[in-house]
Amino acid sequence: MYSFDEILDIVNLEIEKISYNHYTPKTLFDPISYILSLGGKRVRPALSLMACNLYQEDVTPAIPIALGIEVFHNFTLLHDDLMDRADVRRGKPTVHIKWDDNTAVLSGDAMLIEAYKEIAKVNPKYLLPILDLFSVTATEICCGQQLDMEFEKRMDVTIPEYIEMIRLKTAVLLGCALKEGAIICGADDADADHLYDFGIKIGLAFQLKDDLLDVYGDAESFGKRIGGDILCNKKTFLLINALADESAKRELIGWFDKKDFIEAEKIKAVTAIYDRLNLKQKSEKLITEYYEKAIVCLKQINIDDSRKKILYDVAESLMFRNS
Amino acid sequence: MYSFDEILDIVNLEIEKISYNHYTPKTLFDPISYILSLGGKRVRPALSLMACNLYQEDVTPAIPIALGIEVFHNFTLLHDDLMDRADVRRGKPTVHIKWDDNTAVLSGDAMLIEAYKEIAKVNPKYLLPILDLFSVTATEICCGQQLDMEFEKRMDVTIPEYIEMIRLKTAVLLGCALKEGAIICGADDADADHLYDFGIKIGLAFQLKDDLLDVYGDAESFGKRIGGDILCNKKTFLLINALADESAKRELIGWFDKKDFIEAEKIKAVTAIYDRLNLKQKSEKLITEYYEKAIVCLKQINIDDSRKKILYDVAESLMFRNS
Repeated sequence: MYSFDEILDIVNLEIEKISYNHYTPKTLFDPISYILSLGGKRVRPALSLMACNLYQEDVTPAIPIALGIEVFHNFTLLHDDLMDRADVRRGKPTVHIKWDDNTAVLSGDAMLIEAYKEIAKVNPKYLLPILDLFSVTATEICCGQQLDMEFEKRMDVTIPEYIEMIRLKTAVLLGCALKEGAIICGADDADADHLYDFGIKIGLAFQLKDDLLDVYGDAESFGKRIGGDILCNKKTFLLINALADESAKRELIGWFDKKDFIEAEKIKAVTAIYDRLNLKQKSEKLITEYYEKAIVCLKQINIDDSRKKILYDVAESLMFRNS
Repeated sequence: MYSFDEILDIVNLEIEKISYNHYTPKTLFDPISYILSLGGKRVRPALSLMACNLYQEDVTPAIPIALGIEVFHNFTLLHDDLMDRADVRRGKPTVHIKWDDNTAVLSGDAMLIEAYKEIAKVNPKYLLPILDLFSVTATEICCGQQLDMEFEKRMDVTIPEYIEMIRLKTAVLLGCALKEGAIICGADDADADHLYDFGIKIGLAFQLKDDLLDVYGDAESFGKRIGGDILCNKKTFLLINALADESAKRELIGWFDKKDFIEAEKIKAVTAIYDRLNLKQKSEKLITEYYEKAIVCLKQINIDDSRKKILYDVAESLMFRNS
C-alpha cells in the first residue's frame, strides 16, 4: 500500500504530465494549464487513488478518474471565481483577471470537456457507471454553486439549507472521487456506497472547518486572509447561526448596510458576536459529529482495518487541520 | 425510410420530452428549458437520425446522439451570446439578458453536462467511440469560437484561416452528428468517415451561405436583420476578401473608425464594395464547390443511392435556401 505522501506524489506527477502545450489556439488552453499549475491540496484525486488502493496495489486504473475529477474541480474554481468576481486564487490572479471574462468562460468550457476526456480513459468495462456518477455529481455541484449565489441575496437561509448547499457544492465530489476509485477496482456496491457516504461526511466537516478557519484560523498557515467571509457577508454556518439571534441580527445588519468601514473593525465586531454566541464551539461540535459519522461509514467497509488506516488518517487530518 | 418532415417531427417530439421541470434550483434549469424551447432549424439532430436511417428503419438508437448534440449546440449558443454580448436569439432575449451573466455562465455549464448525460444513454457497445468523437468535436467548437473572437481584433485574417475557423465552429458538429448516427447503427468505418466528410463540406457551405444571406438575403425570410455582420465588422468571407483589396480596405477602415453613422448608410456602402469586387459571385462559386465535394462524399457511401436521396435533398436545400 502507498502512504499518503506517495499517493500525492503520484497525483502531482500525473497532473504535471497533462499538457496542453501543443493545443491551439494557445489563448484557449493557457488558462487551463495556468489554473492546474496553481496546485491546491489535490485531496480529491488522492482520495480516488486511496480508494482504489484499498483493493489492489496498482492504482493505475484510478488515474483517469483522479485526473478527471481534479480537472473538473479546477474548472468549477475557474467559473466560480468569475461569477464571484474573485481576484485572487491560491495567491495568484484569477483567470478572468489575468486574461478576461470571455477567456474565463470559454477556457472553463474547454476544461469541463477535458475533464470528460480524462474520465473516458477508464477501463471501458466500468465506463458507464463511472461516467453516470461523474455527470450526476457535476450537475449537483452546479446546483450547489447556484444555491450559494442565491443565499447571498437571502437573510433567511436555514441551517438545513446551508448543509444541503455545502453537500452539493463540496461534499459530493469527495464522495464521487472515493466511490469511483472503488468501482474501477471492482469493489462491490455496498463498499462503494460506504465510501461515498464517508466522502459526504468528511466533505461536510471539511467545509464547516473551512468556514471556521476563515474566522479563527492562523493567517499564515491558512493561506487566505482571515475574515474574508465576514467582509463579504458570506452566509456561512457561523453567520446563519448568528442571524438566528435577534440582537445579533440587528448588529450584523448594521454592518451589512455600512458603506464605509475599517475592515479590521468589522472582522473584530463580527467575531465578537460569534464568540458571544459560542458559535466556534457549536461549529466544532457539528464537525466532530460528521467526523464520527464518517468513521462509522469507514468501519462498515468490508476490508481489513489495516488497509483503511490511510483513510482514517486523512479524515483526522482534514478535521484537525489549521490550514 | 422516413421523410425529412417525419425526421423533424421525431426530433421535435423528443426535444419536447426533455424536461427539467422537476429539477431544482429552478433558476439553474429554467434557462436551459428556455433556450431549447426557442427552436431553430434542428438540422443537427435531424442529420443524426437520417444517418441512422440509411442503415435501418428504426432510428431510436440515434435519439440520444441527436438530443446530446442539440443540447450541446444550444449550450454553445447560450455561452456564445454571453461572450458576444448578443441581446437577441431567434427573436427573443438571450439568457444573460432575460436573467443575468452569472446565470448564463452556470446554466450553460449545467447544459453542457446535460448534453453528456444524453450521449451516455447510447447503446453501451458504442459508448466509447461516440463519447470520444463527441468530446473531440466539443473541443474543436470551443477552438472555433476562440478563433472567431480573436479574428475580431485582427485585420490580417486570411481566407484559409477563416475556412478553418468555420470548419471548427460550425462544420465539425454536422460531421459528428452524421458520423455518430451511422456508428450507432453499426456502419463500417469507411462509410462513417464519408458521412463525416459530407458533414464538413455542407457545414462549410452552410456557413458561407449564412454570411451571404446576412448581406444579400431577404430580411423577412432570413429571420435576422440584414447587414448585422456589416454593422459589427464581422470578419466574414466577404469582408476578408474585401480587405485584401487596398482601396476597399481604406474605405472599410474609414467605416470601422466611425463612431457616429447611419446604419443603413454603412450597410449600403459596404454592400457596394462587395458588389464592386464581385464577392457575391466569388462566395457562390465557393459554396458550389463545397456542395459538389459534399455530393462526392455522399456517392462514396456503400449504400443504395435511393436511401441517400434524403441527404442529397438536405444538401441541396441548405445550399439553395433563402433563410
